[in-house]
Amino acid sequence: MIVPSAWGAAASRFARLSRHPAFVFNVNPSNLERQLSFLREIDRLKSVVRMSPLIDQSRRENSAEHSWHLAMYALVLSEHAAAPVDVTRVVKMLLIHDIVEIDAGDVPFHVPSTHAGQAEREQLAAERIFSLLPEAQAAEFRALWFEFEAGESDDARFAKALDRFQPMLHNAATEGGTWVECEVTEEQVIARCQHPIERGAPALWQAAARLVEEHFRKPDAQ
Amino acid sequence: MIVPSAWGAAASRFARLSRHPAFVFNVNPSNLERQLSFLREIDRLKSVVRMSPLIDQSRRENSAEHSWHLAMYALVLSEHAAAPVDVTRVVKMLLIHDIVEIDAGDVPFHVPSTHAGQAEREQLAAERIFSLLPEAQAAEFRALWFEFEAGESDDARFAKALDRFQPMLHNAATEGGTWVECEVTEEQVIARCQHPIERGAPALWQAAARLVEEHFRKPDAQ
Repeated sequence: MIVPSAWGAAASRFARLSRHPAFVFNVNPSNLERQLSFLREIDRLKSVVRMSPLIDQSRRENSAEHSWHLAMYALVLSEHAAAPVDVTRVVKMLLIHDIVEIDAGDVPFHVPSTHAGQAEREQLAAERIFSLLPEAQAAEFRALWFEFEAGESDDARFAKALDRFQPMLHNAATEGGTWVECEVTEEQVIARCQHPIERGAPALWQAAARLVEEHFRKPDAQ
Repeated sequence: MIVPSAWGAAASRFARLSRHPAFVFNVNPSNLERQLSFLREIDRLKSVVRMSPLIDQSRRENSAEHSWHLAMYALVLSEHAAAPVDVTRVVKMLLIHDIVEIDAGDVPFHVPSTHAGQAEREQLAAERIFSLLPEAQAAEFRALWFEFEAGESDDARFAKALDRFQPMLHNAATEGGTWVECEVTEEQVIARCQHPIERGAPALWQAAARLVEEHFRKPDAQ
């Protein structure tokens, strides 16, 4: 016999499921249907706008094109990793690392006041979005995303170094970019960027440090 | 003794070289300087706008975010390839396949009148842009790009199938997208898309064919 509270739980579960994009096709969707639901859902990453400018300063960068750019950084710069890395895993990490922003939004690196609660929001997002996939793929992407977030493996350290390095190249190429916009000092940039870049890719930190020095030592720099 | 015509050739070569982004740093740039010049240059792919809409119809897609989305398609859908593929090579191909559009522009798939001369423009672009990299990397990317363009290997066939399939999913999700905008018929869509998708990923063509039929058989479809 089904008691009322069980009915309530079942109704609530149905209400949740019926909002699942795969539900409109099939209550027991095939692998392909689940995969296509996921690929449609992540189109929304193209509408998550970051603070970083494009190099031509025509607009701000979005998180989907940023992820493409970082995957290219990984392919091109892997010889500069601090330790031997599996480039394929680094590319995968960087392709998926920002997908959680579809729910959690992007928090600007140089605006620490926005960071509170972001880790929790991103974990909920990883659970919801990767679960659109068939379970084996969902588990693989969740594990890769957690590895990136933890930043402890050689692959994750290199991926995180690239994620910090790329906006520095954009800032240096745009007369300061978010450094100027967020009114950060040379010391703050070094304090925030040196460790994550240097431990993943020492040669890239050397290049970045030169760019920082060139920008902040200009006569008209703040 | 240097004769005037040799001087002319040398001056012309210098003029060409001096427009090379690496030249402003160093006449004999290091590998890293060349790699960073390339990574700055390809930022321009974010400003190449395609005809395809985002699924939320807020704007058209650009070629950088399209390349990210296709790399995700490759990671997620590789089990549906017609033959076993090397997913890493497919992802690389898709990450670089549109970089030539920085010089050559995007030509809309359903506007054949724009296609004349595009292959030649893209070859010149591949030569110029990949040559910003250190030679070994330039040669690897050029070879991968030519393999994709030729579309004969199993990896390239699968990559090309995804490149054709993704816009169909967007069109189906946006009440017709470029099918409506370009006034194409159901027969034209099938004639243009079936072969490249079916030979690289038969199951994806089955899914695409259902979407085409659903769209064009609606009472209000053209």
